[in-house]
Amino acid sequence: MGEGGTSERTRVRRLPDKQVHDRAALDAILDAGRVAHVAALDALAPPDAGQAISAAQPYVLPVAYARDRDTVLIHGSTASRLFRALAGGAPTCLTVTLLDGLLLARSVFESSMHYRCAMVLGQAQQLDGEAKVSALHSLSEHLMPGRWNDARRPNHKELAATLVLALPLDEWSVKVSDGPPDDAEEDLALPVWAGVVPIAEVLGAPKAAADVRPDVAVPAYVASWRTA
Amino acid sequence: MGEGGTSERTRVRRLPDKQVHDRAALDAILDAGRVAHVAALDALAPPDAGQAISAAQPYVLPVAYARDRDTVLIHGSTASRLFRALAGGAPTCLTVTLLDGLLLARSVFESSMHYRCAMVLGQAQQLDGEAKVSALHSLSEHLMPGRWNDARRPNHKELAATLVLALPLDEWSVKVSDGPPDDAEEDLALPVWAGVVPIAEVLGAPKAAADVRPDVAVPAYVASWRTA
Repeated sequence: MGEGGTSERTRVRRLPDKQVHDRAALDAILDAGRVAHVAALDALAPPDAGQAISAAQPYVLPVAYARDRDTVLIHGSTASRLFRALAGGAPTCLTVTLLDGLLLARSVFESSMHYRCAMVLGQAQQLDGEAKVSALHSLSEHLMPGRWNDARRPNHKELAATLVLALPLDEWSVKVSDGPPDDAEEDLALPVWAGVVPIAEVLGAPKAAADVRPDVAVPAYVASWRTA
Repeated sequence: MGEGGTSERTRVRRLPDKQVHDRAALDAILDAGRVAHVAALDALAPPDAGQAISAAQPYVLPVAYARDRDTVLIHGSTASRLFRALAGGAPTCLTVTLLDGLLLARSVFESSMHYRCAMVLGQAQQLDGEAKVSALHSLSEHLMPGRWNDARRPNHKELAATLVLALPLDEWSVKVSDGPPDDAEEDLALPVWAGVVPIAEVLGAPKAAADVRPDVAVPAYVASWRTA
């Protein structure tokens, strides 16, 4: 659990010097992101006995997520085919990528990006009862800290319409690119600028819905999210 | 080609009112993004004749991409298992998600995000010769406009180490969430603020590598990328 990228499936083959094995790095990426991309095969597609596994169609969907200790939590509609497939035990891959910059080398070939990427493999488990409500609380607090104590919480009907899944942080890998451009020795003398153009995600000023009650102002916890 | 989400596989079942069928919307999302998440099964994994297709393991990896007319271009190392699987015709899904804001409803249940998401299904084709160089040019100009005419272009050895793939924009779907919070009638009277906290990706000031030649300044085209 404490070390990632040690299984044959998660060992980074391309640019292995960018692999980070430390669990704290995984947690930091997961805690900094908001949207993950999750894959599953369409388990509800008509079965075809003669079809090779390599010919199966994967789907990649964006999902909001939160980390809670040693799991990643996601939630979706009970009517979602992806979520039903995942709840049924379909192997999945959940990937979170944070783009940190454009990396300009002297050559086009060595030009790349600064990024932090976490990939988690496994099977998700459906949560119910108190664990389900606790997970929704964690999701809400990760994505909109402070909101759970202010907004109306899920009622029984809403809970029944929601699938909550937990993917264990058992098999994972982390890849980080944050170094200077890696130009070949003979390119260093070229009259070409090299460096990084940083990229950041910023949260702006809250915009009220047209029908907000006139006596209700932007709450302090919402205003505090602003980063730009 | 001009209309998306019309196949059984790309019809949006969840929140169908968010589906956009117009090709211009697809192009706008693809042209605004930098990183896509691409899935493939591990075609190099040991075959298991008794394994159900639904038990196969998908992988999701971030890739830089560019649109060129009716294809999405991606490039990677010839040593990458994902790229070799895709070049071999493995069905893939390429998803681009742009996160535009946090959508705060009065209820936790209706709270969500503003986003634009494009999903492309299909099989990629490997590009070679002039089409390959042209695709690398398109990728470079999409991600780093102006750079192709300044940086050193790929040589024969670098071209040989690079796989360039084109995924046709034949089967795709687009989903956009940009409306106000969709609170239930009975929640509108609650003393809870509702609205949107906008999220944007910004490019900052270029930071030169330590070994840039002292007579080489930040080029004007690089400085022009700045948005913050």
